[in-house]
Amino acid sequence: MGKYVFGVDLGGTTVKLGLFETDGKLLDKWEIPTRKEDNGSKILPDIAAAIKNKMSDKGLEKNDVVGVGIGVPGPVDDKGIIYKAANLGWGKFSVNEELAVLLGGIPVKAGNDANVAALGEMWKGGGEGYSNLVAVTLGTGVGGGIIVNGRILTGATGAGGEIGHIHLEDDETESCGCGNKGCLEQYASATGIARLARKKLKDTDKASSMRSHKEISAKTVWDAVKSGDELAIEVANEFGEYLGKGLAAIACVVNPEVFVIGGGVSKAGEVILKYIEGPYKKYVFHASRDTKFALASLGNDAGIYGSARMVLD
Amino acid sequence: MGKYVFGVDLGGTTVKLGLFETDGKLLDKWEIPTRKEDNGSKILPDIAAAIKNKMSDKGLEKNDVVGVGIGVPGPVDDKGIIYKAANLGWGKFSVNEELAVLLGGIPVKAGNDANVAALGEMWKGGGEGYSNLVAVTLGTGVGGGIIVNGRILTGATGAGGEIGHIHLEDDETESCGCGNKGCLEQYASATGIARLARKKLKDTDKASSMRSHKEISAKTVWDAVKSGDELAIEVANEFGEYLGKGLAAIACVVNPEVFVIGGGVSKAGEVILKYIEGPYKKYVFHASRDTKFALASLGNDAGIYGSARMVLD
Repeated sequence: MGKYVFGVDLGGTTVKLGLFETDGKLLDKWEIPTRKEDNGSKILPDIAAAIKNKMSDKGLEKNDVVGVGIGVPGPVDDKGIIYKAANLGWGKFSVNEELAVLLGGIPVKAGNDANVAALGEMWKGGGEGYSNLVAVTLGTGVGGGIIVNGRILTGATGAGGEIGHIHLEDDETESCGCGNKGCLEQYASATGIARLARKKLKDTDKASSMRSHKEISAKTVWDAVKSGDELAIEVANEFGEYLGKGLAAIACVVNPEVFVIGGGVSKAGEVILKYIEGPYKKYVFHASRDTKFALASLGNDAGIYGSARMVLD
Repeated sequence: MGKYVFGVDLGGTTVKLGLFETDGKLLDKWEIPTRKEDNGSKILPDIAAAIKNKMSDKGLEKNDVVGVGIGVPGPVDDKGIIYKAANLGWGKFSVNEELAVLLGGIPVKAGNDANVAALGEMWKGGGEGYSNLVAVTLGTGVGGGIIVNGRILTGATGAGGEIGHIHLEDDETESCGCGNKGCLEQYASATGIARLARKKLKDTDKASSMRSHKEISAKTVWDAVKSGDELAIEVANEFGEYLGKGLAAIACVVNPEVFVIGGGVSKAGEVILKYIEGPYKKYVFHASRDTKFALASLGNDAGIYGSARMVLD
């Protein structure tokens, strides 16, 4: 049994790679560009070359490596079949098999990037010590990853953990990117928070430090919250009401030990948690009332940690 | 390896028992009363005696039996620890260990009754052929069981699948049994449907065949729906709107292959599915839009099937 494992986080512009010991110690990390030309046909060969080069640099033989995990931006099933990654120009094929061949038979395990990041946070991040967790990524959209007994909940069509599209608001008039109206993502993503703030500023004449900003971002809102701006606090309460309600619904389904909150919005820090936890406790079933809340701590490295961890099962 | 397995469904008034071959063939089923006196201390010895008698009747030795599965009305963790079963007078203890001792070392596996019933429907019921399913029980309350890759999703505190308490209505004024307001159970259980109907009959003067009934039950409503009663159809639409929305939220979390709908309400038959599926498709994320809907088919036997199946992992 090898002592090393590679974790790969395949994004739309760069591929992040990490070399780990099997106990989770990160020995080396680096990046290569994602070459999307020719329907993304260069991507896996580039990754294989990067890994083989690293192995020869470090003097590693095939037997020293347990395997290679890879997080991919699209739905991936438990056998490593990706259904589509429009972003990369990919159609349906087995990532596990194709990359393993390119690596001369080193075992490969592929997963969806959001799910893999959740596993990373469980292994060495904000969810360390837990084996049942829900990772929530508040970025441009709202993503999620569900970990049950230490393993990713993939779902029938690789759409497990697509929590950003839980319907929460019947009165919404604008459409979500998915085509529906009233999705969690429309209120709890960075984009959603900024949208709530713009609406609030338009609907009232109240003074707010946010008015001095030409462009309102989620950061504008949270900075204003921290300085006690009343209107920003109203926005934070709306955000928390929606997200708390959404997480309460999730808890009624999977009853996790902990929610790990990450993504760009979480950079505002601990302050966001209190706005989520209050409504969460109000809406959730009593058996899940003591679920913990933590911030994600691995940032952009969650993907390489999680994909490496995925190989070790 | 034995060829037989016992499934036990422990209820508040009777214990149902089944003797199965490991391929799922039901050879014998019978019941004994649940003796709740002395804090339920007679229950497990009664069950052990019933199983041992059956084994001696059938000439089975210990080695012929793979194990005994048991579904219990309360939260049970993956190690078979029950936290509390108020209904039986039970506190916290290991059902697996205590019953195994009483059975002279035959392996025992305990699970929550709703979860175990879901597994039964997967094995030999409405969800046969699937390994990722959500069972929904529309009875006095709304219960659920989540099966992921053929196994029960237990949750951190045994509350996985408590879907009846997903919050769906901010404007509700009456309380749910759990203490919250606006839970799915308040609209989709037998009790909830009857409540919606009574409200509707009070709020309007419209004619309805339901008015000739002194007591309105869920059956009254569905019978009226089948005979084309307009007001009853309005109630069915409200029921379906809530349940469809709730199941759409669940699909965004676990992305199942199929929803299996059971419990007293499901006795109305296929007619209920169309009221659920329409709203479901409206609210769900596109990746889960093709999730199947089926009726549960094992009725009161789901528990013995599921508990037997649980042992075979």
